[in-house]
Amino acid sequence: MSSYDPRTGAALEAPPESTPDEVDDTVAAAVAAAEELAAASPGQRAGWLTAIADALSANIGILAEKADEETALGLPRLTGECGRAADTIRFYASVVREGGWLGATIDHGSPDLRRVNVSLGPVAVFGAGNFPFGFGVLGHDTATALAAGCPVVAKAHPAHPRLSVALAELAERALDEAAAPAGSLGLVGGFAAGSRLVGHPGIRAVAFTGSQRGGLALWRQAAERDDVIPVFAEMGTVNTAVVTPAAAGSFDENGFVASFTLGMGQFCTKPGLLLAPAGAGIPQRVAAALTDKSPQGWLLTEQIATTYREGVRGLEKVGGRVLTRTAAASGGWEAQPVVLAVTPAELRESPTLLDEVFGPVALVAEYANRAELDEVLEILPGSLATAVHAAEDDPDLPGLVERLSRTSGRVVVNGWPTGVAVGWAQQHGGPWPATTSPAHTSVGAAALQRFLRPVTFQNAPDAALPPPLRAANPWRIPRRVDGDGER
Amino acid sequence: MSSYDPRTGAALEAPPESTPDEVDDTVAAAVAAAEELAAASPGQRAGWLTAIADALSANIGILAEKADEETALGLPRLTGECGRAADTIRFYASVVREGGWLGATIDHGSPDLRRVNVSLGPVAVFGAGNFPFGFGVLGHDTATALAAGCPVVAKAHPAHPRLSVALAELAERALDEAAAPAGSLGLVGGFAAGSRLVGHPGIRAVAFTGSQRGGLALWRQAAERDDVIPVFAEMGTVNTAVVTPAAAGSFDENGFVASFTLGMGQFCTKPGLLLAPAGAGIPQRVAAALTDKSPQGWLLTEQIATTYREGVRGLEKVGGRVLTRTAAASGGWEAQPVVLAVTPAELRESPTLLDEVFGPVALVAEYANRAELDEVLEILPGSLATAVHAAEDDPDLPGLVERLSRTSGRVVVNGWPTGVAVGWAQQHGGPWPATTSPAHTSVGAAALQRFLRPVTFQNAPDAALPPPLRAANPWRIPRRVDGDGER
Repeated sequence: MSSYDPRTGAALEAPPESTPDEVDDTVAAAVAAAEELAAASPGQRAGWLTAIADALSANIGILAEKADEETALGLPRLTGECGRAADTIRFYASVVREGGWLGATIDHGSPDLRRVNVSLGPVAVFGAGNFPFGFGVLGHDTATALAAGCPVVAKAHPAHPRLSVALAELAERALDEAAAPAGSLGLVGGFAAGSRLVGHPGIRAVAFTGSQRGGLALWRQAAERDDVIPVFAEMGTVNTAVVTPAAAGSFDENGFVASFTLGMGQFCTKPGLLLAPAGAGIPQRVAAALTDKSPQGWLLTEQIATTYREGVRGLEKVGGRVLTRTAAASGGWEAQPVVLAVTPAELRESPTLLDEVFGPVALVAEYANRAELDEVLEILPGSLATAVHAAEDDPDLPGLVERLSRTSGRVVVNGWPTGVAVGWAQQHGGPWPATTSPAHTSVGAAALQRFLRPVTFQNAPDAALPPPLRAANPWRIPRRVDGDGER
Repeated sequence: MSSYDPRTGAALEAPPESTPDEVDDTVAAAVAAAEELAAASPGQRAGWLTAIADALSANIGILAEKADEETALGLPRLTGECGRAADTIRFYASVVREGGWLGATIDHGSPDLRRVNVSLGPVAVFGAGNFPFGFGVLGHDTATALAAGCPVVAKAHPAHPRLSVALAELAERALDEAAAPAGSLGLVGGFAAGSRLVGHPGIRAVAFTGSQRGGLALWRQAAERDDVIPVFAEMGTVNTAVVTPAAAGSFDENGFVASFTLGMGQFCTKPGLLLAPAGAGIPQRVAAALTDKSPQGWLLTEQIATTYREGVRGLEKVGGRVLTRTAAASGGWEAQPVVLAVTPAELRESPTLLDEVFGPVALVAEYANRAELDEVLEILPGSLATAVHAAEDDPDLPGLVERLSRTSGRVVVNGWPTGVAVGWAQQHGGPWPATTSPAHTSVGAAALQRFLRPVTFQNAPDAALPPPLRAANPWRIPRRVDGDGER
């Protein structure tokens, strides 16, 4: 593999790519671990997750430094992200313990039917470049796959291969000390290794976070297998924020600039399009706020930096007019933050304006009236998140929230979508092409469901049932019995 | 379209195929109904479903006769199936009322997150030939889509187009009288119409029950759309039944014959492969039972009859030895029931022996010991259901139930998979290639989930939230609040 310092473009020493035999051995170890992991009780799985979380917590400083060398995202951000990743894994441990994810359901009668979610088997995890901890080797996908009783084979991310190796080693040690099955977590590196992984008969599902191009390529590859497996790809698109006429005066342009430039705009939840009522000077206010703020930083890889420059040029070519373009950092994978003005008519006529450009760029369009706003909302692609900025008791709010919910997985009121809180009620997913399925989430308690499938046992005696379905309910999990909650 | 009497092969008068404009108009009506259906309360939706169920119940006799003309499945079977279809719709009405399918989840805090399942939009339903009521125009797929708040455009099945039209007219009238939105249910007919439906931008999901060839063709077509939509195809494969050594003496060969010849073997849950311990004479007992029983009947279509004959010839060509072949009915789409002997070694060497042959044929293989049985279990394709016949306190049972659960969606103990009870705990689905996703079911309460997707609302005021997430819980549905059940 290759590794670079984004601040200078200098090459760092990088771990080697995995050979085909190494990939096969890693998958074989995962396959060998699958049965024991799938049979492990919620308490055991929670213990293993907690061991990983504790290892992360104990090494935040050294891991953040290692991540900063390869990502240039800065120590404050990376220290925070690593700590949050540990807390997130602890949250999933609590979700596993609760047991609702098993969906245990019992219908007494003739026949006696008992349904429970079982583990899919080894999961290939392709993490994201922009969240080396949150969506990295030990991020949401890995944690929820392990929580669901599935071994993980992660692919080292080309933007942070050294960190990927460090995280895998840390977790493998923690899992080993916590007596998890050998092979519960493995790592492979290199493009060819990733492709071999997705085609490997031992892999039963793929989780991906990243670009449209990457996600769709894996999705297509998996669809050509003899035994097709699900690919849960979170790819993201342009996320839209709407300002209502009543909120125009108090609209916080600094908040918008902070959101679309956060992490140098490398967020799949970046608000890339602002729809503002005409006449309140919002484009000019945003332009001034960007000038004042002038965030500087680097993009993760040379390819992202190149794609960003080309993407902004592409937006300009189809009508985007530069309102402000601020100075770049010097050297390395630098990028100039920019905000562009477009019109609703241009958005409708040039669909490429609605293609996501990864990096610190946003479009601002002014709408004359609700009809013109609705015309733009009609052509929005499916997205992870949308936002609406409204006044108190704003008459436009309920209708806009409903309208935005039709094309996105999350609707934020009077805030920005860039923060994704972890909890029971979170949804991080959205209609095609934001993700490959309309219904999955990669963040929150429901994220475990990706790696489970239901099985129903008909007239099986107690001794032949898995623990969640036995009469004594040995795991003390919530169950639906004869249509109702169990007392 | 064309319609035939399977008993004679004589053509019946058939409804015309839909023109492209008619397909577009039907989808447009569904799109127009979508918003009102999605916003309807559980009580309203349950009322509409009950209206359809009552219309079915009131017309069982005439509908069963109509179905028999085109399917030759016989009045007793069709009368029972129509009544069960009405009961099934009433069950889904009770599921809708209960509200758990909404998955309403509230996390108080900063931010305030509230997650709920919303309707996907218009669903295209491709029913099955073999269950003109259970999986027809008013079968499980239509009922659960409507329950989930999605308008349905059904495609008339080529094996029973006249019945399809009668069912759609009956339901449209019932929905209209119950004040459901116009366009909640529509029907199109003809191959080209079905293809146009799957490619139509207004259609948001496809439900299919039928052959591998048909299901995979729709799945591939949907994957080539600009906006890919999910295809929930229930296709079925060979379902395996295992007899343990301890159960060999008391094994009920008549039950096996009755199951694989039920409905002339036209069940996606037909036990197509019996694995029996060597030395108990089970192949001979099965052969004798088939001879005694000698069921006669017709297949649904000329194509199924042709495919059946070719399929049996194919099994013979790769090693299947005829144990018994009984007489066919005379005339029309007749078929000869047959049971073939194979060896475990032949099953491993000729994977085509494991291809499903739709119709009254089954394979019986004798295994010498557990190792040889396990070798066969290792190569089984994903299937909808498996069965194991065991003695009381049979030491082989728990391990076999676990093993069979790895490749199938339902494991039946001491019974046959052909009956699919409708309830909260049912699972009618299974790993690829039995269905197109490992996790969906097309029967039971969870079948609604196919047509829903989650949306999270962040910091939305009460007035901007959908009813299931409002503070007052106006629909009185079960909710998870701050990680726990709401009191």
